[in-house]
Amino acid sequence: LDYLAVGIDPEQTTIFIQSLIPQLPELTIYYLNLVTWNRLKHNPTVKQEILQKGYGESVPAGFMVYPVSQAADITVVKADIVPVGEDQLPMIEQTNEVVRHFNRIYQKQVLVEVQALIPKISRLPGTDGKAKMSKSLGNCIYLGDSADAIAKKVKGMYTDPGHLKVEDPGKVEGNPVFTYLDAFDPDTAKVEELKAHYQRGGLGDSVVKKHLNEVLQAILGPIRERRESYAKDPGSVMQMLKKGTEKTLHIAEQTLREVRQAMCLDY
Amino acid sequence: LDYLAVGIDPEQTTIFIQSLIPQLPELTIYYLNLVTWNRLKHNPTVKQEILQKGYGESVPAGFMVYPVSQAADITVVKADIVPVGEDQLPMIEQTNEVVRHFNRIYQKQVLVEVQALIPKISRLPGTDGKAKMSKSLGNCIYLGDSADAIAKKVKGMYTDPGHLKVEDPGKVEGNPVFTYLDAFDPDTAKVEELKAHYQRGGLGDSVVKKHLNEVLQAILGPIRERRESYAKDPGSVMQMLKKGTEKTLHIAEQTLREVRQAMCLDY
Repeated sequence: LDYLAVGIDPEQTTIFIQSLIPQLPELTIYYLNLVTWNRLKHNPTVKQEILQKGYGESVPAGFMVYPVSQAADITVVKADIVPVGEDQLPMIEQTNEVVRHFNRIYQKQVLVEVQALIPKISRLPGTDGKAKMSKSLGNCIYLGDSADAIAKKVKGMYTDPGHLKVEDPGKVEGNPVFTYLDAFDPDTAKVEELKAHYQRGGLGDSVVKKHLNEVLQAILGPIRERRESYAKDPGSVMQMLKKGTEKTLHIAEQTLREVRQAMCLDY
Repeated sequence: LDYLAVGIDPEQTTIFIQSLIPQLPELTIYYLNLVTWNRLKHNPTVKQEILQKGYGESVPAGFMVYPVSQAADITVVKADIVPVGEDQLPMIEQTNEVVRHFNRIYQKQVLVEVQALIPKISRLPGTDGKAKMSKSLGNCIYLGDSADAIAKKVKGMYTDPGHLKVEDPGKVEGNPVFTYLDAFDPDTAKVEELKAHYQRGGLGDSVVKKHLNEVLQAILGPIRERRESYAKDPGSVMQMLKKGTEKTLHIAEQTLREVRQAMCLDY
């Protein structure tokens, strides 16, 4: 629903259900032989996430190997561009290592190297100002949030903890309210003005948050409406998913045929 | 061919091609979420094999997770007994951990716990007297070896390195020639006699090896002949494999249906 609501067109973009593509675990298992244990241990994004989730020594093996499973996700459709946040660059690097290793070992150009497509605002901090927005950390504004929920989340956002009184000068760096304005307010002159005012003092958090709330409501309102209208028609959404999954299955079967042939597993 | 040659009957025992069962990688990927990274690192058999193979830090991730892949091999057919050497007991333990963890988390008795069936002579040392017989270590006598190859391998076997002259007393512990006699010579009284003679001195290695060679030739001759006769008819062997693989696929599909249902992945 989120994909459709923001305007991704299923006629141009194949949306599919990952767990219905059995070629993905098969590819992942093959790729695990091309990646060292040590390499997985030193993936910077995975290391960061282990800390955030407090896994410590009891991190599930499935979590440690997820960059390899992502390499399967990407290569099974021979993607050459992947839109990602900058924190996902190590996954793209891991994918390309697998691609080069596979093609070299099995002496066939079966898999395709991939490039990351990183947006200008590459990563939004959470409303708590910490790390990235992440479902599991509960610091997100969702595309389906009601107007009230958005207003409440914006009101509760982390700002500059040193900005105690309105007349105090405030910091805009590391202040997610301004990061969000940079990302979403099309009126950049207005944002610069607010930043300058905030920095010299005399601009209260509540005023800036009120403005951010207006900006977000203007963007998210139409998205929420489209989301609700799709939600009312689950049959056609399911049909779209079924079509996309069947198309992907077809591509995945073809890729696996080539992979198994290169590996001499095509009996 | 080895299985058929030693008398495994494909009418009673289903022999199949593992890489043609796509449910195995799928199960493995699910199970990886039920096993910690730390647990895999401390598997004693895997640790031992990493040393033997000299992998060090560059051990492939696929190697580290193979006990989980074995748990898939075992559970996909709901096996309740697995005949293994004692060195494989940690794999059975890992499998049962996965089974209990899965059934508890998904609140359904889908998977079946397994028992190891360990033979009296649970593990043959290699002809070099080191560790286990292992293809990759090149210290094996194969079921298909010619009479000459067997004779040559027995002649080259490691014995007691302190037994330099015929008249010297020799050791039978850790001496693979006597371990093999214990395993294969049906005349246990004769073996005890040879052991006593060897220990008090006056029995040359070449005499004991000559006897072991006769014992092995008597056992391996008929196996080799059956092996050769099956080898002459690859069509019917392939047909047997095809039948066994189809039967296993059918069982694996049923198990995966239950697994996916328990995991609420049955859409």
